[in-house]
Amino acid sequence: MFASISFAQVLDFVGTLAFAISGIRLASAKRFDLFGAYVVGVTTAIGGGTLRDLMLSRTPFWMTDSFYLLCSAFALLWVIVFRRYLVRQNNTWFLFDTVGLAMFTVTGIERTLAVGLPFWTAVVMGAITGAGGGVFRDVFINEVPLIFRKDIYALCCVVGGAFYYVCLRLGLDNVTCGLVCGLFVILSRVLAVKYHWHLPVLKSED
Amino acid sequence: MFASISFAQVLDFVGTLAFAISGIRLASAKRFDLFGAYVVGVTTAIGGGTLRDLMLSRTPFWMTDSFYLLCSAFALLWVIVFRRYLVRQNNTWFLFDTVGLAMFTVTGIERTLAVGLPFWTAVVMGAITGAGGGVFRDVFINEVPLIFRKDIYALCCVVGGAFYYVCLRLGLDNVTCGLVCGLFVILSRVLAVKYHWHLPVLKSED
Amino acid sequence: MFASISFAQVLDFVGTLAFAISGIRLASAKRFDLFGAYVVGVTTAIGGGTLRDLMLSRTPFWMTDSFYLLCSAFALLWVIVFRRYLVRQNNTWFLFDTVGLAMFTVTGIERTLAVGLPFWTAVVMGAITGAGGGVFRDVFINEVPLIFRKDIYALCCVVGGAFYYVCLRLGLDNVTCGLVCGLFVILSRVLAVKYHWHLPVLKSED
Repeated sequence: MFASISFAQVLDFVGTLAFAISGIRLASAKRFDLFGAYVVGVTTAIGGGTLRDLMLSRTPFWMTDSFYLLCSAFALLWVIVFRRYLVRQNNTWFLFDTVGLAMFTVTGIERTLAVGLPFWTAVVMGAITGAGGGVFRDVFINEVPLIFRKDIYALCCVVGGAFYYVCLRLGLDNVTCGLVCGLFVILSRVLAVKYHWHLPVLKSED
Repeated sequence: MFASISFAQVLDFVGTLAFAISGIRLASAKRFDLFGAYVVGVTTAIGGGTLRDLMLSRTPFWMTDSFYLLCSAFALLWVIVFRRYLVRQNNTWFLFDTVGLAMFTVTGIERTLAVGLPFWTAVVMGAITGAGGGVFRDVFINEVPLIFRKDIYALCCVVGGAFYYVCLRLGLDNVTCGLVCGLFVILSRVLAVKYHWHLPVLKSED
Repeated sequence: MFASISFAQVLDFVGTLAFAISGIRLASAKRFDLFGAYVVGVTTAIGGGTLRDLMLSRTPFWMTDSFYLLCSAFALLWVIVFRRYLVRQNNTWFLFDTVGLAMFTVTGIERTLAVGLPFWTAVVMGAITGAGGGVFRDVFINEVPLIFRKDIYALCCVVGGAFYYVCLRLGLDNVTCGLVCGLFVILSRVLAVKYHWHLPVLKSED
């Protein structure tokens, strides 16, 4: 059975789990009930890809594959069981979240190229796939979306997407392009957090 | 003329009216103007079904049938005229709202099955059709969505959907499946409110 | 080169720029970083048309034409460079914003009629195209949408749309219908702001 699980599926699992857990933790901090926490977790995990698929006129990916909702249910169980240890697992979840960001970016780029849209659209779709779920999450918990205020997050997807393009123009195959793009997303995100890189805030008008 | 109005259309009217009124009342409590209150009312009534139709790659149902926007206009008129009596009508509107929740859940399930998607997707679509409008409403009035924090609401749709599935597997026809599902949604919602059933809140991490 | 730029494209540019700048200014007032400000600006400019295109089962217009994202980048640059002069430019930006509202309303009506939907649906789509972006903007900056509380804004689109319909029934061509509709949107918006016209607020239930 395990022999048939691809490397991409493992990354998809890791990313979905990490995204769902980030949603569930923020929802529980706001005293959502179990159902609300699950919905916020699912939305964080699948929201970006759903918006991408709607824009590409496709059936949202999770509607034909129960993996994503089950994975989010597993995330809910994890938070319930390992509640007291989550803070200590923070570094692991940050890493998993970053792997998910990279994976979802690559998926978004490739699905957009597959329908024949221009490359810059694919880069935007990659960023929406990677970062869109977190925006939905923050709207649901009634906060200003975190990625608009601090941290370099979606920008990693955009620059990763540019690397995908360069590789593609160099004649490299899809798998290599995806790997380079994904590694760049992970590297830039880790460096940005480690060295507290932030984008400048627009100065006020006064 | 009335002879041609089906039972399902009556339920659709009752539900649309109750959903729109819930949106208009909350909007007016936040001092929205007439236009804003109407938009929130319409969104509460049609938001869930619109999201469902977008996900099913269909034209949103209200775009080809003026009934739903007219019905929401009637709801606005009702709130203006019977403003002083709305609180006394609370039980009636709770019942109508619950009928609408049941009706919309069944519609969501059946439209999803009609395009050949799996049953669990149909159950999720039923819950989105029933409960999605209320989430949009709460985002518009800038509150944390009520159904995420308290009350058993969307969960009634999910368990109602499971009953639909059981009936279908038992070989019952669509109408019977829909009736059983709808009655279960109504019954569970009424019991949950009457006996103050709540889902547990996730414990904080500390 | 400039010879090939149509009048409609100029209006599209003016409107996109004004909408994006309104988003960027509100985002910077909330201390969003450059990336967040850009995303809010883009969303303000293209959000309404994107929702319209999704509802019409079309690929969102900006995904096949890089003009709109570039124009929003230009808006961001404008806000950075002319930060100190923006308040003095307020009347200009109000006028440009109003031109954009008119232009987007006409576009929304015509694209809806083009797919054969009824006229009242086209009027609603016109209003969504014109006013939808501002609603997304306000959700992102976590404020109650401005157009629901004060100002006559989306209503100008609706009445402009009604004028389009009258012209069409009188047998006038598309361009004339669009001009009359657009001029009415501009006129009604300017008058509403100049004379502080507001819609009544729903009275509270007590």
